[in-house]
Amino acid sequence: MTDLATPPVTSPAAPAHSPAAAGFVDRHVGPRGDETARMLATLGFADLDALVDAAVPAVIRTDRPLDLPAARGEEEVLADLRAIAGRNRVLRPMIGQGYYGTTTPAVIRRNVLESPAWYTAYTPYQPEISQGRLEALLNFQTVVSDLTGLDVANASLLDEATAVAEAVALMWRASRATTGTVVLDADLFPQSLAVARGRAEAVGLPVVVADLGDGLPEVDGPLVGVVVQQVGASGALHDLRPVVAAAKERGALVTVAADLLALTLVTTPGELGADVAVGSAQRFGVPLFGGGPHAAFMAVRQGLERTLPGRLVGVSVDADGARAYRLALQTREQHIRREKATSNICTAQALLAIVASMYAVYHGPDGLAAIARRVHGGAVRLAEVLTAAGVEVVHEHVFDTVRTRVPGAARAVVAAAAARGVNLWAPDDDHVQVACDETTTGDDLRAVVLAFADAGVATPPVDGPSVASVAPQPADVPAHLARSTGYLTHPVFHVNRSETAMLRYLRRLSDKDLALDRTMIPLGSCTMKLNATAEMEPISWPEFAAIHPYAPADQTQGYAALVGELQDWLAEITGYAAVSVQPNAGSQGELAGLLAIHAYHESRRADGDEPRDICLIPASAHGTNAASAALAGLKVVVVATAEDGEVDLADLRAKLAQHGPRVAAIMITYPSTHGVYEAHVREVCDLVHEAGGQVYIDGANLNALVGLARPAELGGDVSHLNLHKTFCIPHGGGGPGVGPVAVAAHLAPFLPGDPTPGAAGGSPVAPVAAAPWGSAGILPISWAYVALMGPDGLRRATETAVLAANYLAARLREHFPVLYAGPGGLVAHECILDLRPLTKATGVTAEDVAKRLMDYGFHAPTLSFPVAGTLMVEPTESEDLAELDRFVDAMVAIRAEIDAVADGTWELADSPLRQAPHTAAAVTADAWDHAYGRERAAYPLASLRADKYWPPVRRIDGARGDRQLVCSCPPVEAYADDVR
Amino acid sequence: MTDLATPPVTSPAAPAHSPAAAGFVDRHVGPRGDETARMLATLGFADLDALVDAAVPAVIRTDRPLDLPAARGEEEVLADLRAIAGRNRVLRPMIGQGYYGTTTPAVIRRNVLESPAWYTAYTPYQPEISQGRLEALLNFQTVVSDLTGLDVANASLLDEATAVAEAVALMWRASRATTGTVVLDADLFPQSLAVARGRAEAVGLPVVVADLGDGLPEVDGPLVGVVVQQVGASGALHDLRPVVAAAKERGALVTVAADLLALTLVTTPGELGADVAVGSAQRFGVPLFGGGPHAAFMAVRQGLERTLPGRLVGVSVDADGARAYRLALQTREQHIRREKATSNICTAQALLAIVASMYAVYHGPDGLAAIARRVHGGAVRLAEVLTAAGVEVVHEHVFDTVRTRVPGAARAVVAAAAARGVNLWAPDDDHVQVACDETTTGDDLRAVVLAFADAGVATPPVDGPSVASVAPQPADVPAHLARSTGYLTHPVFHVNRSETAMLRYLRRLSDKDLALDRTMIPLGSCTMKLNATAEMEPISWPEFAAIHPYAPADQTQGYAALVGELQDWLAEITGYAAVSVQPNAGSQGELAGLLAIHAYHESRRADGDEPRDICLIPASAHGTNAASAALAGLKVVVVATAEDGEVDLADLRAKLAQHGPRVAAIMITYPSTHGVYEAHVREVCDLVHEAGGQVYIDGANLNALVGLARPAELGGDVSHLNLHKTFCIPHGGGGPGVGPVAVAAHLAPFLPGDPTPGAAGGSPVAPVAAAPWGSAGILPISWAYVALMGPDGLRRATETAVLAANYLAARLREHFPVLYAGPGGLVAHECILDLRPLTKATGVTAEDVAKRLMDYGFHAPTLSFPVAGTLMVEPTESEDLAELDRFVDAMVAIRAEIDAVADGTWELADSPLRQAPHTAAAVTADAWDHAYGRERAAYPLASLRADKYWPPVRRIDGARGDRQLVCSCPPVEAYADDVR
Repeated sequence: MTDLATPPVTSPAAPAHSPAAAGFVDRHVGPRGDETARMLATLGFADLDALVDAAVPAVIRTDRPLDLPAARGEEEVLADLRAIAGRNRVLRPMIGQGYYGTTTPAVIRRNVLESPAWYTAYTPYQPEISQGRLEALLNFQTVVSDLTGLDVANASLLDEATAVAEAVALMWRASRATTGTVVLDADLFPQSLAVARGRAEAVGLPVVVADLGDGLPEVDGPLVGVVVQQVGASGALHDLRPVVAAAKERGALVTVAADLLALTLVTTPGELGADVAVGSAQRFGVPLFGGGPHAAFMAVRQGLERTLPGRLVGVSVDADGARAYRLALQTREQHIRREKATSNICTAQALLAIVASMYAVYHGPDGLAAIARRVHGGAVRLAEVLTAAGVEVVHEHVFDTVRTRVPGAARAVVAAAAARGVNLWAPDDDHVQVACDETTTGDDLRAVVLAFADAGVATPPVDGPSVASVAPQPADVPAHLARSTGYLTHPVFHVNRSETAMLRYLRRLSDKDLALDRTMIPLGSCTMKLNATAEMEPISWPEFAAIHPYAPADQTQGYAALVGELQDWLAEITGYAAVSVQPNAGSQGELAGLLAIHAYHESRRADGDEPRDICLIPASAHGTNAASAALAGLKVVVVATAEDGEVDLADLRAKLAQHGPRVAAIMITYPSTHGVYEAHVREVCDLVHEAGGQVYIDGANLNALVGLARPAELGGDVSHLNLHKTFCIPHGGGGPGVGPVAVAAHLAPFLPGDPTPGAAGGSPVAPVAAAPWGSAGILPISWAYVALMGPDGLRRATETAVLAANYLAARLREHFPVLYAGPGGLVAHECILDLRPLTKATGVTAEDVAKRLMDYGFHAPTLSFPVAGTLMVEPTESEDLAELDRFVDAMVAIRAEIDAVADGTWELADSPLRQAPHTAAAVTADAWDHAYGRERAAYPLASLRADKYWPPVRRIDGARGDRQLVCSCPPVEAYADDVR
Repeated sequence: MTDLATPPVTSPAAPAHSPAAAGFVDRHVGPRGDETARMLATLGFADLDALVDAAVPAVIRTDRPLDLPAARGEEEVLADLRAIAGRNRVLRPMIGQGYYGTTTPAVIRRNVLESPAWYTAYTPYQPEISQGRLEALLNFQTVVSDLTGLDVANASLLDEATAVAEAVALMWRASRATTGTVVLDADLFPQSLAVARGRAEAVGLPVVVADLGDGLPEVDGPLVGVVVQQVGASGALHDLRPVVAAAKERGALVTVAADLLALTLVTTPGELGADVAVGSAQRFGVPLFGGGPHAAFMAVRQGLERTLPGRLVGVSVDADGARAYRLALQTREQHIRREKATSNICTAQALLAIVASMYAVYHGPDGLAAIARRVHGGAVRLAEVLTAAGVEVVHEHVFDTVRTRVPGAARAVVAAAAARGVNLWAPDDDHVQVACDETTTGDDLRAVVLAFADAGVATPPVDGPSVASVAPQPADVPAHLARSTGYLTHPVFHVNRSETAMLRYLRRLSDKDLALDRTMIPLGSCTMKLNATAEMEPISWPEFAAIHPYAPADQTQGYAALVGELQDWLAEITGYAAVSVQPNAGSQGELAGLLAIHAYHESRRADGDEPRDICLIPASAHGTNAASAALAGLKVVVVATAEDGEVDLADLRAKLAQHGPRVAAIMITYPSTHGVYEAHVREVCDLVHEAGGQVYIDGANLNALVGLARPAELGGDVSHLNLHKTFCIPHGGGGPGVGPVAVAAHLAPFLPGDPTPGAAGGSPVAPVAAAPWGSAGILPISWAYVALMGPDGLRRATETAVLAANYLAARLREHFPVLYAGPGGLVAHECILDLRPLTKATGVTAEDVAKRLMDYGFHAPTLSFPVAGTLMVEPTESEDLAELDRFVDAMVAIRAEIDAVADGTWELADSPLRQAPHTAAAVTADAWDHAYGRERAAYPLASLRADKYWPPVRRIDGARGDRQLVCSCPPVEAYADDVR
């Protein structure tokens, strides 16, 4: 060594310089420099600063640039994430408690979880371009319905804990009871109990927790419902017949929390007479992901389907009578029911439900049963060996989880197991539980037995060979608990069992759909921007994917660091003091924010004060806002909005005067749902604050603010963010989402509590999700986005999003009126095209335009929100000028088609607009008797000849699907009609 | 701890049992159990054994089951591979010598390298269903042509070393010289010299190696050609003007070995007046892969294009006059030229060429130049700092590689650098070279400087801050070496620069093509079987992907273990004594095998003996055989084949009698190219052996033998295998391939030599590839396949392949005659459908059927090989019964269409057969004047309505494309015609 070594290699004077550092922002932002210049020229601005100065009111602009790490290159960020991931330690996951080791078949991992065609898709609200994922979700419903033995299953819920909470609400709703009690089984997973109790208490629904081994308890008032867990948190496989009978006797509804894998072997909730079943589909091939995202499920018996929360895929027909899938019963959705809603869930876990459904498709009923029997056999064998070694095994009947009694030694056993590479679970100091799963090997079982010995609770000497030979061998459950009904008889679960067949099935389905990998999805308020590959790759790494949510803290240092940093960054971006990433959807972030406000007010309420229980919501708000307020126990009072979408200040003053001391909060969206930067937002906030209320600023439109303004600086006390909008988590065909809640300092103590079983107190507020970091597994995506963009890149993204929206507004204004505009006639990051005058004149509706856009290869903009009869267009910063112009060309061509209806060239009913979308089958049919030609139908623009998307079905009859509700795979005979 | 711990956790008495262990074989093999039974019933056999006993002559069956490890599950194999990968160590790759660090853009990694739509595609011999990859390959040609400044580039070669060898052959060919010498620059990469000299010497072409710094040497006879390397192996950036001028003066052709990245900055071969340029496109985003696969390139000036080896994509038009791509000038191909061939290459590196082309598309000319300037700047700065530190830097002008003179200390510097995590290169004891690349950071440069200091060859003290601030900064090359011409002006290199645009471009292209992810590809002799995801995933791991081929052995223990095991397994499967995986294509394996035979004979030749220089080849052989024999310096003598495809024993005896002492070998294929198990193979082998010749058994059809018979046991002395056929390496749209050579013990000393520069002697035979393990990076695929299948699974795959071929033959026989059959009327793993009688009767050709199959959603079987006018069908074991039946349905329907031509319903010229394939544009055109209907054109089977593939172009005019050769992206104006 010489003096040369003096300056350390990693001298701060010479920071590592990544060769690609400058590059990612230019990959994320669509328009090249010259394109930006042309777009600005169209708008009459010299540069981006000038546009932003004109579009964004000075009064809302921040004077403090983002204090975030400088942008890093893709390779550098991936290397940094590898280092973070390296701080997580992957042990064998035998903790259980609702989360189990599972093998994601590689063909599904690569071709669903890692395939842009699946993960960049939007929620299937436009069913004609969503037939592939709708079929996959229908498969999911069929899996759940078949395995639970109940008639109708939805297309996933956020997690099992919220599913239990939803079931409680459903039973109240279905029973139409106004008084009474719901009983929760004490053997529910602790996180299910915590979330469900929190949700029930927020709305004042009485619940009690009881050990149901002694029968149903006496309760106050009528017994509204009972939630029992079939495979208990304790591992006990309960015979539910007595409790169900007792509940029915007392007129109560019954929900069974069930394990999908166990249901391949054990009596189903349907056979038991239950009304509802809930659970998680995680162990059907979905990685542990540190807690999520996973698809939970809910199924109900016939008669309750209209009370089901969440999305429901149903079968209907298209305009040619061909079978087609669509979301059914959408009138139940929270954005329709608003404050009457009893659920606020909007995002589902579509991508994960699809993975779970494909796992079932790939294994088929025999494969699933074989897995279940082997899992069960592992538990049985383990119990035998432990018993032989002198360890007390608590339950006679179990499915996968063996509970042992080891007085005072539980922590020691868990520690000994961890030292052998296996995570076990100690619910208290005297018990240890071991959960077997699909991945459990003989080595794992031996390590467990040896760990009990290490801790001194197994009696030595144990017969060596007996331990050496321990291995999971298939075993059946006792006959009196066994299921007697078949399942998954549909061909889809039998014909895709080779990898080749599976690969092609996945490709065939995804080819039916339009996702971001083929076209812009200009959905106002949904921010369908690039989901960069470098952001997506890390979620597959085992160090992120294979972590149990309740793994000890010393194994999750990487996640802790990543979550901590991301929360800090989001706080810096929004201006708030603290952030929790726990809410696993925007709706849950809203709820968490409102619960924080509620708890804050309660903490300050003096004796005799009226409770602050009113939430002011502008008429233009997203329906979820009102639903969330209702779920937080708040009463909704609507504040009028002016024609331009702004809050009517006079009405606000009036409402405050009327309700002042009872006003808990106002919920506003900024920029408003009308896509404009309101100039009076600070005034609104001040008025509410003066009245003692808190200000909730919905972060749905944060993509118009990042780097330019901060919700907290506008006067917000709390916001939720949608990481699946502004922060690049893909929409996954309808979830996952992540909805962190961000709060000012005075609300920080009221962020959601920790759902980890046995976690020390902390927040007085209940958790809103089953896992402490919610959907931890996908947080690397948003972390990577912020790291890749840096402060300047984030701001440039915002500015470019505003530029793109204004460019579209300017180009389209002469063809379709732009409904609202802010300062200088400019919009924010989206614009509303008003179809109503044209509809009045010609009958052509916004829906006609939306469907006709499919023929042009586009996903429709947001339809009839926030204003019926309009289209709200949000191009985002990721679309380049060529794609924006392609959209303009399509819309201009459609306007010409509308004119042709207006001038009588075509009757509306036989126009390409009303007949849209056109399938290849329709356009190539030997018979063609339309007033317009085939080429007009299929290739209205010459550019389509180079790249044509064919919708797989024609316009779908929604009403018929709702009348004749079919929500699982139709029988084979139904397919006969398709082939003509 | 207690006695319980006595049996070790990993006791051999209790092997780890993987839960999925039994599963993979059932995923790889398509037909389910009941399907297998139905197929057997169709054939009249009770079980698979009975069929195999009937189909496979007892005389060839082995009595020794495969001695291979038992099948492991997917998760277990992935874990095992992770452990193997963990034994490779990834250091910073500053070795250079033709292999450089590079960043594969994540969007390209995920959506090309890891996308089944790209990697499972076949070679684009059927251009109508290959337009996407043909466009990508045309982009590659454009990149090479633009950057080299030469007129025509091919669509990739196997590696730079073989490209140099091909250039030498090309210059001989083009010069039409019969005597003379080719001069090779001593500053060519050593591996290029080794391979090129070996190839030249094998065919007796005189070459000399000379230091061209002193001008061109005097040579024997005319100077035929010169190969110079622009950026020398020594790192020197040579001014080639003097040597090119001198060569031209002497009437010689000039080949420049060039670096694509350097060419963005330096004078092009075209500007210099060179005739040919060769090189590697590896550093355009293709991982190091431990040596390969990478795409090499060759470009030539106008006038030489018909002498170009390899594949060439050209532009032509389809039946409707639309622009369409196809392989051009296929008459140059080795299977046409046979023993007149001067190249035997068949496989290209399509997948890697596509990655490289997309790297250029994504970066564009400005991005590439910026990368090059930064790479150059790193070298310049490093040279400055080293010089300042007292280290002697050898060359004034360099591009990326700094050569230092460190007398006696080279190994010490390299060791010191390795200790700092950086690999450098010591060509000898006195010099160290440092190669900068796209990924080089300031930290890397500092580590290099400190390593020189560690080794005591930098003079201390060096100015600390000067080192601390060392970093790659953009720099230009000296003006007299700089290029003056533009490049990559085509829009494709400008409009796909955001990740969103890139993603959609990749999707759009792949959607045009039919690959295994959508349909069976029943190509006789090509074995298009499943490429399982679990086999594919590991090749992306950095521990395999980021290894330099010349990294020291202590860093490549994982590769060494994997290669060793794979070679052992392949030896066990084939029955040979030794295997080398070095040949990176089947053609190279053939060459290596024949070179081994040649060297063996030479080693035994007594004074005065005639050389054994004749290779007997049956008339039915694949053309590559003859080409390879020619390249090995052997003369081809054709042996007649009987009507049934068998070698004509009488003619063989006659030929042996005629040429006996000169017979070096016979090359046969088993089962024969006619798809039958010949019963007389042992007799053939014995006859040749008796004459003193060796037996080469082409392994192309090994998929019919694995587990049932061994080529070595049949009498073979050498075989090559195609890992991209039998052993699941995907075809990648026309490469990569891997063609290991397997030899009997007496030939083992003559396996290919080690191309690693400076590698110790070993084999007397020259290497056939640039890297010691050839395409090491994809060997994990085949390793995984064997590990997953185990001995029983491999045998079951073979048996199922035989079953599937016989099932198709049986179902189709009544519609199309099956040309050859072996014992019991059964075929082997493929069958030939004879169209000639129908062609004679109706005019409908095998090509018409092939094109019509596209309308039915199929890739055509092998067309007119080995018998003109036929289709050879190989379904493989991976297709399930539904897919086999879908193919039968299509062929039966096509037969009915042929009958309709026969009975006069349609004129042939206006039949759906001759008009095939039909595009969506054609079928939806307002005008339709065909004798058959639109629905007949597009949906001849009802099942197509559920899953329709639309060919993007109609039948392509091949002849026109060859007449008007256009082999780079057409100018933009050319696109105007496309939009009608």
